[in-house]
Amino acid sequence: MQIALLGGTGDIGEGLALRWGRDTDHEIIIGSRDPDKARRKAGEYEADLASRGVDRAVSGFQNAAATKRAEVVILSVPAYHVVGTIEAVAEALDAGDILVTPAVGMKRDDDGLHYNRPSAGSVAALCGDAAPSSVSVVGAFQNLAAGRLADLETEIDVDTLVFSDDEAAKATVTGLANEIAGLRALDAGRLANAAEVESLTPLLINLATYNEDLEQVGVKFS
Amino acid sequence: MQIALLGGTGDIGEGLALRWGRDTDHEIIIGSRDPDKARRKAGEYEADLASRGVDRAVSGFQNAAATKRAEVVILSVPAYHVVGTIEAVAEALDAGDILVTPAVGMKRDDDGLHYNRPSAGSVAALCGDAAPSSVSVVGAFQNLAAGRLADLETEIDVDTLVFSDDEAAKATVTGLANEIAGLRALDAGRLANAAEVESLTPLLINLATYNEDLEQVGVKFS
Repeated sequence: MQIALLGGTGDIGEGLALRWGRDTDHEIIIGSRDPDKARRKAGEYEADLASRGVDRAVSGFQNAAATKRAEVVILSVPAYHVVGTIEAVAEALDAGDILVTPAVGMKRDDDGLHYNRPSAGSVAALCGDAAPSSVSVVGAFQNLAAGRLADLETEIDVDTLVFSDDEAAKATVTGLANEIAGLRALDAGRLANAAEVESLTPLLINLATYNEDLEQVGVKFS
Repeated sequence: MQIALLGGTGDIGEGLALRWGRDTDHEIIIGSRDPDKARRKAGEYEADLASRGVDRAVSGFQNAAATKRAEVVILSVPAYHVVGTIEAVAEALDAGDILVTPAVGMKRDDDGLHYNRPSAGSVAALCGDAAPSSVSVVGAFQNLAAGRLADLETEIDVDTLVFSDDEAAKATVTGLANEIAGLRALDAGRLANAAEVESLTPLLINLATYNEDLEQVGVKFS
């Protein structure tokens, strides 16, 4: 499968690229608004993987060109860039492509971080509204600490929650998540269930702030 | 310490009564709107504990009388009864008493359960508004599956999140939570952080619905 990581030059995109690069044979395509940055980061990920004995190509393109090459497109950009990014790549999406949203809107005040729920209901709902009707929107990877994910020395050992109105697309993303060693995907229902999943992210960041030894905290359900 | 469990005749109240009864020496006082029901349930908990070799008294009273006898008062009632319950017991609360809110407002539609955020911001914020200013409000125990908690044969092995604007009261409730075997209390910040904690409950119930072997799911952070 071809996976494009838009905004794949940082944060959650880096960790997903490295782990899929190490743990699977899927083609990894890094997208950025700046194609030079995308190519440079792709080269860095390739070198990082090679240093671990994983010999594989990682390519980098401007976001629309990356999208054109992929069946699964991860929107690993900040929440306030999600709609603009979808609009920028809409023409590069083919019917049946899967758009994955890991983004969460948050706001900070004196009491820490809070979920900043968009008026659409969730970031995932914003994606659903902005995406062409011929593609499927899936929510996943909201609750992974970026540093822990990108540190391949760490066994992540956490769960991620996957939700969509398209069961086939949800199954595809569930499979991709489960292929990452130490990651378990659980079914969190439909897009209408997104707000509760997205709310977990500011909670995790607050727990990391208020408790010792939870700097890169993840969540497991059992 | 004297702990009153208002609405302690069912759901989360039963499990907390049984586990504190088994694992601690704190005095357990069951409250109900109906004093006969409170006494009957207290007798059942006493018999359950005795059958496990734990010989101790559990008393039952009408909610206000239970509150009068306690320093820590658990509002284990449905979210829509929280404010009414506080009003009914307000005169029985002493300065320095701790009111603990485990309740979560939820609504169900075709897509499962959703967090039904009160206009005050959270159920805990409702409690804060309704409680006399001389008592402290602490949120805790929102994310425990009632059946798992009440089944003393089960090692619960889950986390609970504790939050309050009163650090001393938060420390007291954290201590009470940690005294239950298999339960770990984490600091989730202040009352302003309540919505993200309360949102976890419908998420857990949806995960229980959509995934196998997670019927009585709990959450752990690591």
